[in-house]
Amino acid sequence: MTAEIISIGTELLLGHIVNTNTAFLSRKLAEAGIDLFNTSVVGDNSKRLACALNLALTRADVIITTGGLGPTVDDITIETIADLTGKPLVQNKMVRKCLENYFKFKRLKMPETTMRQTYTPKGVRCVRNKVGTAPGLIAEWKNKVIICLPGPPRELEPMFSADILPFLKNRSKNSCVIKSRTIKITGLPESVVNNMVKGLLEMKPPTTVGIYSKPGQVELKIMSKAGNEKTAAAAIGRIEKKIRARLKNFIFGCDEQTLEGALGNILIKEKLTIAIAESCTGGLLADRITDVSGSSKYFIMGLVAYSNVVKENILGISGGILKKNGAVSREVALEMARRIKLLAGADIGVGITGIAGPGGGTNTKSVGLVYISIVTKKKKMVKELLFKGSREEIKFQATQVALDLVRRLFY
Amino acid sequence: MTAEIISIGTELLLGHIVNTNTAFLSRKLAEAGIDLFNTSVVGDNSKRLACALNLALTRADVIITTGGLGPTVDDITIETIADLTGKPLVQNKMVRKCLENYFKFKRLKMPETTMRQTYTPKGVRCVRNKVGTAPGLIAEWKNKVIICLPGPPRELEPMFSADILPFLKNRSKNSCVIKSRTIKITGLPESVVNNMVKGLLEMKPPTTVGIYSKPGQVELKIMSKAGNEKTAAAAIGRIEKKIRARLKNFIFGCDEQTLEGALGNILIKEKLTIAIAESCTGGLLADRITDVSGSSKYFIMGLVAYSNVVKENILGISGGILKKNGAVSREVALEMARRIKLLAGADIGVGITGIAGPGGGTNTKSVGLVYISIVTKKKKMVKELLFKGSREEIKFQATQVALDLVRRLFY
Repeated sequence: MTAEIISIGTELLLGHIVNTNTAFLSRKLAEAGIDLFNTSVVGDNSKRLACALNLALTRADVIITTGGLGPTVDDITIETIADLTGKPLVQNKMVRKCLENYFKFKRLKMPETTMRQTYTPKGVRCVRNKVGTAPGLIAEWKNKVIICLPGPPRELEPMFSADILPFLKNRSKNSCVIKSRTIKITGLPESVVNNMVKGLLEMKPPTTVGIYSKPGQVELKIMSKAGNEKTAAAAIGRIEKKIRARLKNFIFGCDEQTLEGALGNILIKEKLTIAIAESCTGGLLADRITDVSGSSKYFIMGLVAYSNVVKENILGISGGILKKNGAVSREVALEMARRIKLLAGADIGVGITGIAGPGGGTNTKSVGLVYISIVTKKKKMVKELLFKGSREEIKFQATQVALDLVRRLFY
Repeated sequence: MTAEIISIGTELLLGHIVNTNTAFLSRKLAEAGIDLFNTSVVGDNSKRLACALNLALTRADVIITTGGLGPTVDDITIETIADLTGKPLVQNKMVRKCLENYFKFKRLKMPETTMRQTYTPKGVRCVRNKVGTAPGLIAEWKNKVIICLPGPPRELEPMFSADILPFLKNRSKNSCVIKSRTIKITGLPESVVNNMVKGLLEMKPPTTVGIYSKPGQVELKIMSKAGNEKTAAAAIGRIEKKIRARLKNFIFGCDEQTLEGALGNILIKEKLTIAIAESCTGGLLADRITDVSGSSKYFIMGLVAYSNVVKENILGISGGILKKNGAVSREVALEMARRIKLLAGADIGVGITGIAGPGGGTNTKSVGLVYISIVTKKKKMVKELLFKGSREEIKFQATQVALDLVRRLFY
């Protein structure tokens, strides 16, 4: 079964809102094994909606529209469907009753315009809206199905999950499932990962691998379509094994796992504590570490040492070292890591100093230059890095490398 | 001039990512007064992309594609455009040079596959990608323009703003402009703002006002379409004046301004410095303050005092106060603010302590309870708040209130 989504709303074409409905529906359709090859957006315009519907009817079995079901004159979905299918508009008693109850419950007088929403094309099935006023529609016509859903995500999402998805699954009699697994990698650019998984990216369905570049990390998504969950999971398992053999410890996690979460698991397992002194990342490293629930078990303290005075007075770095090497230097990063470890009595100390930009660069030290140091009982290291991007991007990339350097202590 | 957007990527059709590129481009096109009536998404499939392009060519003057410009076999945009226009692929020396420099800068060996990105249809204009590897394209063909942009937003957005938009504006010679202004409000829920601007939200074009709820803030977007910039700006100015009269200092800024940026401007103007001690927000407040370029002028230090030991040993809060009131208390928040101000020698001290959850709640102190204290030479205050949401949402809301409390010292 092939589906197509048409989103209706001038606010989408003006960029006032992001089309999260299409992303939600796409994900749900994929999980149900229903193919989706095209999605589109049109404004609140009958003629253009009719065009889009006619085109979709030539290539899909099920057309799902979102939006344009409200009570105002801008809402043109119902009339357009009625015109297209030649079904006259008739008042639906169930919808009328529901609307009357809705306003009674809210202790509000029903506006005149609302009555418009009680008229639907003759013979179509109305789907109750448990959150808002606009009912959904399921119109079967010439062996195709047109499904109309309300625009607000909080109305669309429960309606789709509760009523539309079971209807589609039943109709498609699709005995297939799609499962997926995302393998997350850091420390390598996309092009290098691409080379390392050559052959896998070219696989054809039912099992495929896609590569996605995200800030500071690369993700490989394995998808498999099969007759049942077990077969799909086994196919994914086989590919995952191959990917793990090639990328080894560049992989930090899977699916919903974050780098800071993966590091947290290691620190808990190893019963180790961490303390950080950051300058150019300005608190972002501490923020990411503490985004992990339970991080208080291993995170002792973070110091955002933005000025040299703080580096001297609180961390106790000698003025001589700062003066000789400058605040952005290998030596100061190392001292920050060493001294925060001492100050906090932690097992691991991290120091970060650099130039996040856009100002602050010099001839010898350009914007994006960052030194990251890790100090443990047994090990001392400093890494020099050069990042590109906006201030926020440089901050993020630096924290990504810092988290990864700590993680790699254990591999 | 009419534009149409075609987004290319199977990951969009699978719902793995949300199509923010289309929202961004739609907004920019609207602001430039360029009509957009249709947008669509197709997967990484040459045939379906060709179909979409052919359809778009029948109804738009400018077609903008996003995605599919990478070095992998999935990336089919360039070949499809070459086939469609009959222009052979030739190596572009400028693109080659840029790519070589890119890898040199990153100190990486250029992968073989990257070379694929140096081939573009003969005669098209290549647009430099200042962030990633894939160049953009401007192909003029049969009186139409096809513009190809890279998929990652951090590459697409600067390229569009710097190179594509000026090209389109010049070509469209559009006699109408759409201007907009976003008024940003914090400290009031959407329903209250909604009531306060009644009458304005119901305005009809050419000048309209929309209300949007964002995490920790509410935004009012004024839009105006007119024959020239001056008329549109004047119409917006009149409405803005009305909004400002009603919402007064609940408004912290406009358009691209952030709350941390607005606070930064105040601190620079007042020549004041700030230091913060945060517990439950875990570094997020310092991170937000230091996201502002030039924040080193007023931000002295941040301390993420996650454990009681740090609160005692580094901040010097007496064990008695901690024991008597608990770490999450009015008294400890005040001590954190007072002592970090002292430690840093700053003009303003901020202390935050609370329970970000999901764990850590008790019968008397529930998840979401946060105490925020501000201490200056003349003033001491503590505010008790109760936030709802995920760990990240609670952290964010607490920093939003903290920033706003400091801002309000000056109103």
